[in-house]
Amino acid sequence: MIMNCEKALDEALELGCRVTANGRAAGYIDELAKKDISHLGAAMCSLDGNIVEAGYSREQFTMQSISKVVTLIAALEQRGHDFVFSRVGKEPTGDSFNSMVRLDLLSGSRPFNPMINAGAIAVADCIDGSNTGDRIRVCLDYARRLTGNPFLAIDEDVLRSEKSTGYKNRAIVNLLKSSGIIEGEAPDVLELYFSMCSVSVNCRDLAYLAAVLAGGGKDPLSREQLIAPGIVKLVRSLMVTCGMYDYSGEFATTVGIPSKSGVSGGIISAAIGRFGISVYGPALDEHGNSVGGLEMLEYLSQTMELNMF
Amino acid sequence: MIMNCEKALDEALELGCRVTANGRAAGYIDELAKKDISHLGAAMCSLDGNIVEAGYSREQFTMQSISKVVTLIAALEQRGHDFVFSRVGKEPTGDSFNSMVRLDLLSGSRPFNPMINAGAIAVADCIDGSNTGDRIRVCLDYARRLTGNPFLAIDEDVLRSEKSTGYKNRAIVNLLKSSGIIEGEAPDVLELYFSMCSVSVNCRDLAYLAAVLAGGGKDPLSREQLIAPGIVKLVRSLMVTCGMYDYSGEFATTVGIPSKSGVSGGIISAAIGRFGISVYGPALDEHGNSVGGLEMLEYLSQTMELNMF
Amino acid sequence: MIMNCEKALDEALELGCRVTANGRAAGYIDELAKKDISHLGAAMCSLDGNIVEAGYSREQFTMQSISKVVTLIAALEQRGHDFVFSRVGKEPTGDSFNSMVRLDLLSGSRPFNPMINAGAIAVADCIDGSNTGDRIRVCLDYARRLTGNPFLAIDEDVLRSEKSTGYKNRAIVNLLKSSGIIEGEAPDVLELYFSMCSVSVNCRDLAYLAAVLAGGGKDPLSREQLIAPGIVKLVRSLMVTCGMYDYSGEFATTVGIPSKSGVSGGIISAAIGRFGISVYGPALDEHGNSVGGLEMLEYLSQTMELNMF
Amino acid sequence: MIMNCEKALDEALELGCRVTANGRAAGYIDELAKKDISHLGAAMCSLDGNIVEAGYSREQFTMQSISKVVTLIAALEQRGHDFVFSRVGKEPTGDSFNSMVRLDLLSGSRPFNPMINAGAIAVADCIDGSNTGDRIRVCLDYARRLTGNPFLAIDEDVLRSEKSTGYKNRAIVNLLKSSGIIEGEAPDVLELYFSMCSVSVNCRDLAYLAAVLAGGGKDPLSREQLIAPGIVKLVRSLMVTCGMYDYSGEFATTVGIPSKSGVSGGIISAAIGRFGISVYGPALDEHGNSVGGLEMLEYLSQTMELNMF
Repeated sequence: MIMNCEKALDEALELGCRVTANGRAAGYIDELAKKDISHLGAAMCSLDGNIVEAGYSREQFTMQSISKVVTLIAALEQRGHDFVFSRVGKEPTGDSFNSMVRLDLLSGSRPFNPMINAGAIAVADCIDGSNTGDRIRVCLDYARRLTGNPFLAIDEDVLRSEKSTGYKNRAIVNLLKSSGIIEGEAPDVLELYFSMCSVSVNCRDLAYLAAVLAGGGKDPLSREQLIAPGIVKLVRSLMVTCGMYDYSGEFATTVGIPSKSGVSGGIISAAIGRFGISVYGPALDEHGNSVGGLEMLEYLSQTMELNMF
Repeated sequence: MIMNCEKALDEALELGCRVTANGRAAGYIDELAKKDISHLGAAMCSLDGNIVEAGYSREQFTMQSISKVVTLIAALEQRGHDFVFSRVGKEPTGDSFNSMVRLDLLSGSRPFNPMINAGAIAVADCIDGSNTGDRIRVCLDYARRLTGNPFLAIDEDVLRSEKSTGYKNRAIVNLLKSSGIIEGEAPDVLELYFSMCSVSVNCRDLAYLAAVLAGGGKDPLSREQLIAPGIVKLVRSLMVTCGMYDYSGEFATTVGIPSKSGVSGGIISAAIGRFGISVYGPALDEHGNSVGGLEMLEYLSQTMELNMF
Repeated sequence: MIMNCEKALDEALELGCRVTANGRAAGYIDELAKKDISHLGAAMCSLDGNIVEAGYSREQFTMQSISKVVTLIAALEQRGHDFVFSRVGKEPTGDSFNSMVRLDLLSGSRPFNPMINAGAIAVADCIDGSNTGDRIRVCLDYARRLTGNPFLAIDEDVLRSEKSTGYKNRAIVNLLKSSGIIEGEAPDVLELYFSMCSVSVNCRDLAYLAAVLAGGGKDPLSREQLIAPGIVKLVRSLMVTCGMYDYSGEFATTVGIPSKSGVSGGIISAAIGRFGISVYGPALDEHGNSVGGLEMLEYLSQTMELNMF
Repeated sequence: MIMNCEKALDEALELGCRVTANGRAAGYIDELAKKDISHLGAAMCSLDGNIVEAGYSREQFTMQSISKVVTLIAALEQRGHDFVFSRVGKEPTGDSFNSMVRLDLLSGSRPFNPMINAGAIAVADCIDGSNTGDRIRVCLDYARRLTGNPFLAIDEDVLRSEKSTGYKNRAIVNLLKSSGIIEGEAPDVLELYFSMCSVSVNCRDLAYLAAVLAGGGKDPLSREQLIAPGIVKLVRSLMVTCGMYDYSGEFATTVGIPSKSGVSGGIISAAIGRFGISVYGPALDEHGNSVGGLEMLEYLSQTMELNMF
C-alpha cells in the first residue's frame, strides 16, 4: 500500500507543480504574501498512522480556515450539537469566501454554516473557558491531539498580522454581536478566532488530522476515540457541502472527498475508511483554494478511486 | 434482506405518520393542493430490482423537482458535460426553493446549479430535438427507462395547472433569455420544463429510478448501463449538495444519502451500492420537503446505516 | 425672455455637442441602436406656451421611460392616489435602471416607485378600461393632451422591437403577477406598457409636457387645468427623488430640476414656475441618461438659476 | 407673521399629540429608551432670527443623525466637494435606516450617501485635525455656530451608551476600513461619529440651524455667510432625496421640505427662503422618524404652503 501511495503522491506532485504559476498568494496578510508560491507539498496518512510525504511537506504554514474544523469539533464535544447549532446553521451558500452579505440580509438569523468566517466566529464564541487564554488552550489542545503533534504552536507573527489588519472579521464579529448571536466580547472572540487561524502546521500534521476524520474519530496510532463518531459524520458532511468556499459543489463532483481548505494554501481531505490526505501550496485560485493542491487531489481521487459519490 | 427492508419500511412509515399533521400541501398549484396530506408511502428497490413497499406506495403524484434529475441526466448524456455546465453551475446556494434573487444579483452569470428552478430551466434548454414535442419525448423516454416503467405519462391536468399559474417560472425563463443563457423560445423551454414536472409516478417508479442511481447507472433488472458512471457520480454529488432545497446541508448531516425532493411530496434517495429508496407524502415543511418523508428517511438511514458520511 | 432662452439654449447645445462622443446608444432594442448618436436637440416652453428650440429638436424618438410620467398621471387621475399607491411605493432606490433584485428580495412587497420598470408596470395595470386597446387609448389621449399634440402616435416598429426582445420586462411582469401585485393578464399589461414606451415624440412635444408640469398642471395655451395640482406636486417630487435612474441624487445636486429621462435619449425637466425644458440626444451614459442632455441641463440650470434647492 | 406662525405651531402640536401613542422610543440605546414618548415640541425660526416655540421645545435631546448634516457641512467646507465625494456617493437607497447590505454587495464601492450611517462615517473620516479631540472640536464648533448656541455640548452619558453598544456602527467602520474607504483608525473615526451623535440640543437650537439652511447659509442674526451657498444647495438636495431614511420619497410627496431626522426624535426642516423648522418627539415610527414630528410637519407644510414641489 505504502509504495502505491508514494508513487501516486509523486505523480500528483509533478502534475501540481505544472499549475502553481496560475495562482496567486493570499494578499490580505503580509505574512502570507511572503510565501514562495512555487512550493508544493503533500502527505497521506493511513488509518493506522503510516505517513508518506512528497515535496515541501515539512514547510510550516498556518492553519487558517482549516482551523474551523478543529474549533467546530472542540465546540461540539464541549457544548453539544444543539447548543452550537442554535448559533450557526448547516446550509451551504454560494457566496465567495469573504462575503458578508447574506448574514445581514437575513438579519437576526444565524450565519449559514461553521465553514464560513461568520459561522466560525459564532462557533468560537461557543467554546467554554474561564477566560480567553483558557479558551485558546482548549482549542489548541484539540489541535495538538488531532494532529498527533504535542508541539503545535501559534505563529505569533501571523497572529499579530491578523489582528492588525483583520477589519472584515472585526466587522463580522460586531455584526454578530449586534444581532445577539455571540455572548463574548468582540475582541475576545476575535482573539480566539485569530489565534486558531495562526496555528503553525505542516503537511504531516494535517494528514494525521485528516486520518482521524477518515477513520471515524480514532487516533491512528493509539486507537483512542478522539471524537464521537456522530460528530465525525457531521463534520465530514459539512466539509463536503461547505468546505471549499464557493467551489464546494464543483469540488464534490471532481474530487468527491470531504475536505477543508485555508487561504494559507493547505487542504485536508478525509477519504472515509481509506486515508487522510493533506496538500499544501500557497498559490491560490480565485475561490481561495490552492491551485496545485486541487490538481493533486483531483489526480489522487481518480487514480486511487477515492471519490465517494 | 427483503424481510429486513419490509420491517424497516413499516417502522419508518409508522414514525412518518406521526408527523404529517405538521406539514402543509403545496399551495401554489390547485392540483397539488387537492391531495390528502395524511397519506404517506415508501418503497425500496434493491440493486437487482426487488421492490418492497409500504403505505400509499401506489398513489400517483407528479415528479415536480425530482424530474430535474432526469432532465439533467438526459442533457448530460445527449450534449456532454462541458456543454451543459457552460449554462449552469454546480454550487449550492442557501436560498429558499423559490428564490430568484441570486440569479439577478450576478447578472450575466449562470444559475447556481441544476437543482434550482433557474438551473433546471437552463438544463431543459440544452435538450436537443427538432421541436418541443420531440424534446419532451426525449426526456420522457429517459424517465420511462430510468423508472423501468414504459407507461409513464404526463398528467395533463397538472400540466395545465402549471402552465396557467407558473408566473415565477415564466419570470425566470425570461430573465435567463434576457441574459442570453438560453437559446430556445421562452414558452417552448417552459413547455418542456412544465411537462417533465407533470410526469405522473408512484413510489415504485421512483424507487427503481433511485436504484439505478444507487447502482452506478445500471438497470436493476436488465443490468444494462443506462447512464455513464461518471454522470451518475456527478448527479449524486449534486443531489447531496443541492438536492433538498435550503435544507440540503442539514439533510446531509441527518440522513446523508444523495437525494432529491419535489413539492408534490416525493423524495428519491440513492444509497450508493445499497438500495434505491423513494418516499411520498404531500404534507410539506417550510423548505418544501415532505415532512413524513424526511422522518422516514432519517429513520431508515439510522437503522440501516445508510449515512455515507 | 425668449431671446435669453434662445441664447442659453444655443450655448447649452454647443456644450452638449462636445460630450456626445462619450456616450453610447441604447443597445437593447435594434430600433434605438440605429440612431445617430451625434444628434442633439432641445426645446424650452414658457408657461404661456411659447416654444424656443435648438438643434435636432424636431427629430422623432420614442418616449421610453418618460412615458412613465404620463401613465402615472393617467392612473392617478383615473383611480386616485390610494388605489395606485397600494400597488407601488414612493421610495427611491440606488439600483441601476434595469435591476430587478430588490423587487424579489422583498417578495410580496410593492415595487419601490413608479419611475422604475417594475413600478411603472404596476401603474400600467391600474389603468381602467374595457380592454387593452381601450386602456392604450386612455393613456395615449393623456399623452396627446399633455404634449398639446393631437397627432401623437405609437411607433409600430419600435413597439414590435420592444415586444420581441423585452425579456427583462416580461420577467418583471410575471414576477409581479406571481406576487399578486397586478390583476391584468401579463401580456396585456406589457402591451400597454410597451405601447406607451413607443409613443413617438420630439423636443417640442416634450417641452410642452414639461411646461404643463412646471405650471402646476395648466395647459400653457388654453389655461385649462389638465392635471390636479396635488398630482402635479406628487409627480414632481417623484421626478426629483427617482426620475434619473441611479443618478437621481447626483442630478438633484448638480441640476436640481424635477426631471425624467428615457433610454431613447430624451429628458423632460419641469422648472417649477419657470419653464418646461426638454433635451434629446441618443448617446447615453452608464446610468442610461443622455450625456449631451445632462450637459445641457446642467448649463441651463446654472445660467438661468433653475436649481430649486 | 409671528402670530401666524405661533397659531400654526400650536395647531400642529395639537394634531401631533394625537398620534404620539402610535410610536415607540428608539430601543437601541438605553439613554434614548428612557425618554417620555408623549412629549412633543416644535420651533420655527425666521430668516432674521425670530423664534417661536410650542410644547417641549426646551427639552434637551441628542442630535443623532441630524448631526450628519453638520459633519457633512464641516467636511465640505474644510476639504471641498471632490475630496468628500470621492469617499461617499449622493444616491438615495431604499434601505431601512440601519441596513448595511448594500455597502457590501458593491464591495469596494463608496457608501451610497452621507445621510446613511456608512456614508456619515466616511464623511467623519474626512474631517481634518491633528488628533481625534481636535477633529471633534472642529465639528462641535460648526454645530455651535450653525445653531447660534455657543454652549452646545456633548451628552457624556449618551456618548458612553453609544460607545458601549454601537456594534452595528463598529461593524460598518471596520467594513469601510477593510474596503480602504477610510484612512483613520476605526476607533478614532467612531469616536468622532458617536460624539457628534451625542451633541445635546433642543428645538430652539435646531430651528436656528434649519433657518441657516433655509436662508442660503447666512446666520439669521449676524447675517454672516456661515456656509457657502453651493454647499447649502447640495446639502438641501441630499436632505430631500435621503434625509428621512427609507421614508424620504414619501416625505417629499407629503411634506416637500428638505429635512433630516434622527432617532432621538428630532427633525430639522429648511423651508427654502421661508423659515427653519424643528420638531421633537421621541415616539418613532417603523422608519425611525418621529411620528408626532411627521404629523406636525405635514400640517405646517399644508397650512403654510411650504411644499417646494
